[in-house]
Amino acid sequence: MSAKSIAVAGATGLVGGQMLKVLEDRDFPIKSLKLLASERSKGRTLTFKGESIPVEVLTEDAFDGVDIALFSAGGGTSKRFAPAAAERGCVVVDNSSAWRMDPEVPLVVPEVNPHAVKQHKGIIANPNCSTIQMVVVLKPLHDAAAIKRVVVSTYQAVSGAGIKAVDELMEQSRAVLDGQSIRKEVFPHQIAFNCLPQIPQSNAFVDNGYSTEEMKMVNETKKIMGDDAIRVTSTTVRVPVHTGHSESVNVETERKLSAHEAREILGKAPGVTVQDDLANEVYPLATEAHGKYDTFVGRIREDISHPSALDMWIVSDNLLKGAAWNTVQIAELL
Amino acid sequence: MSAKSIAVAGATGLVGGQMLKVLEDRDFPIKSLKLLASERSKGRTLTFKGESIPVEVLTEDAFDGVDIALFSAGGGTSKRFAPAAAERGCVVVDNSSAWRMDPEVPLVVPEVNPHAVKQHKGIIANPNCSTIQMVVVLKPLHDAAAIKRVVVSTYQAVSGAGIKAVDELMEQSRAVLDGQSIRKEVFPHQIAFNCLPQIPQSNAFVDNGYSTEEMKMVNETKKIMGDDAIRVTSTTVRVPVHTGHSESVNVETERKLSAHEAREILGKAPGVTVQDDLANEVYPLATEAHGKYDTFVGRIREDISHPSALDMWIVSDNLLKGAAWNTVQIAELL
Repeated sequence: MSAKSIAVAGATGLVGGQMLKVLEDRDFPIKSLKLLASERSKGRTLTFKGESIPVEVLTEDAFDGVDIALFSAGGGTSKRFAPAAAERGCVVVDNSSAWRMDPEVPLVVPEVNPHAVKQHKGIIANPNCSTIQMVVVLKPLHDAAAIKRVVVSTYQAVSGAGIKAVDELMEQSRAVLDGQSIRKEVFPHQIAFNCLPQIPQSNAFVDNGYSTEEMKMVNETKKIMGDDAIRVTSTTVRVPVHTGHSESVNVETERKLSAHEAREILGKAPGVTVQDDLANEVYPLATEAHGKYDTFVGRIREDISHPSALDMWIVSDNLLKGAAWNTVQIAELL
Repeated sequence: MSAKSIAVAGATGLVGGQMLKVLEDRDFPIKSLKLLASERSKGRTLTFKGESIPVEVLTEDAFDGVDIALFSAGGGTSKRFAPAAAERGCVVVDNSSAWRMDPEVPLVVPEVNPHAVKQHKGIIANPNCSTIQMVVVLKPLHDAAAIKRVVVSTYQAVSGAGIKAVDELMEQSRAVLDGQSIRKEVFPHQIAFNCLPQIPQSNAFVDNGYSTEEMKMVNETKKIMGDDAIRVTSTTVRVPVHTGHSESVNVETERKLSAHEAREILGKAPGVTVQDDLANEVYPLATEAHGKYDTFVGRIREDISHPSALDMWIVSDNLLKGAAWNTVQIAELL
């Protein structure tokens, strides 16, 4: 790949920071790097490969001469600036939910549907964090045995809600330990030492009683897997974990897979590491997935309530495979 | 009910303490109260209704003249002492897993199968905490629409693993906040800011890949509901919560129930409080269930992946309805 002019929009955010780390770590061939953020971050500088780079204000013209723009700046910003960037010949890889279900926009997980990248018209969407780690594991099982239905419950880390959410968990945790009253601004209820069956933090629910996060898992899974026949139900829950989403996933397949067979298939799957050694209490953990690129799967077992289903436990770093790493992977495909 | 001679075996434990609180709170008619514990607790005293009561060492003869013994002293202790107590004419209500699946021993949740109490031969078993709160909600739905299959993922509090487990969560949480290394003795991995798909802490897993906690939910549900046709799969997970188990439950029924109908049925169910007002972000929470007797249910919705299933979120205090309160309820039935 020849060196590219890259822009990172939302560079000062939690995911933006991870994007810079991943670009550095992967030694992505960069000709020039623009760091873009809102007016608020004016005057800040960020370090990339030891070099200090000023943060510029995000404007339409900022994308002149940029080959690839990685967006992690929220849905509203993406809606406004991604088309302007695309018009200037830049390819946008967008981490917000703004474009994901647009039929003109490919929704890509490189291990699952890399071919979809080719159909882009200037914008490629990065899926929701909780969906990405699930489909990386589901795809090879679907190819082997045809998935009919998925019942998933999530255990999602606060970093998915941004820097302030991480701060709130830490501050509330300390307050509880010190016997003081907690303050809440980001989450609707106490998150420290609690589980909130609501994601996102506001305007979460739609008419059918699902949350928008839950509907993302339902709809994005079908689009990425390229199969509308896969039925999904999801309950998404915020837990007091810093980084690393965990998921309890029940998968019904057309053809029965043994746990052994599933482990073999997943052992060869790209981007997947099987951690499944019960005798030694080895299974995926959020604290251990933190900072890693792979998606981890374990507790794989044949569902005793169904003739052809598996239960499993899937964990990945929501800021990396769930966001920054998947975005950079898409850029690498370009 | 005439006043009874009561013994509490395991009185110095977390659940034992809650049993005393509930007996006090319910103004249970007590003629005499014996507090029993292991040799280690010799010399301690506990307060009941303002009175200081010495803790006696648990022996077989300690049950002479006792009408009802509430056991919360671990499986080994129950195996050894419950038959001895029963032989002395005492009725044992046992909170351990030792007797639950014994066909001679009733396994009772008073809202679900109160009639089973009558068949006792001196020992009545209290079900597992995570099972109790689930069946309290499932029973009225089963009566209305015949449950075929349940897929449950749990979010279980550390207090289910005893006082030391609570201390470990608190100490580890403080260590993480202070940037220090954590110590672990109770849990096999870090529990602070993490989710562990393993319950209990040691020798957790059986040959089919399920944990013993998961198999309890499968088998106890069938026994309590009195219906072996109900199929259950379960993934049980320890989360960094002090007290209050949460459960994400998918319920397939023979007859389709609307979410509205399910809410109406559960609104009238004994021991159940519906908390389901999404517009105001009202749903059950562990922190709010803590200290309460009821089981709370919300996020009730029709599963869009299945023609006849519901998703819901069930929360209860694992030390109260999950243990002490259910035990005292059984004693009240006697």
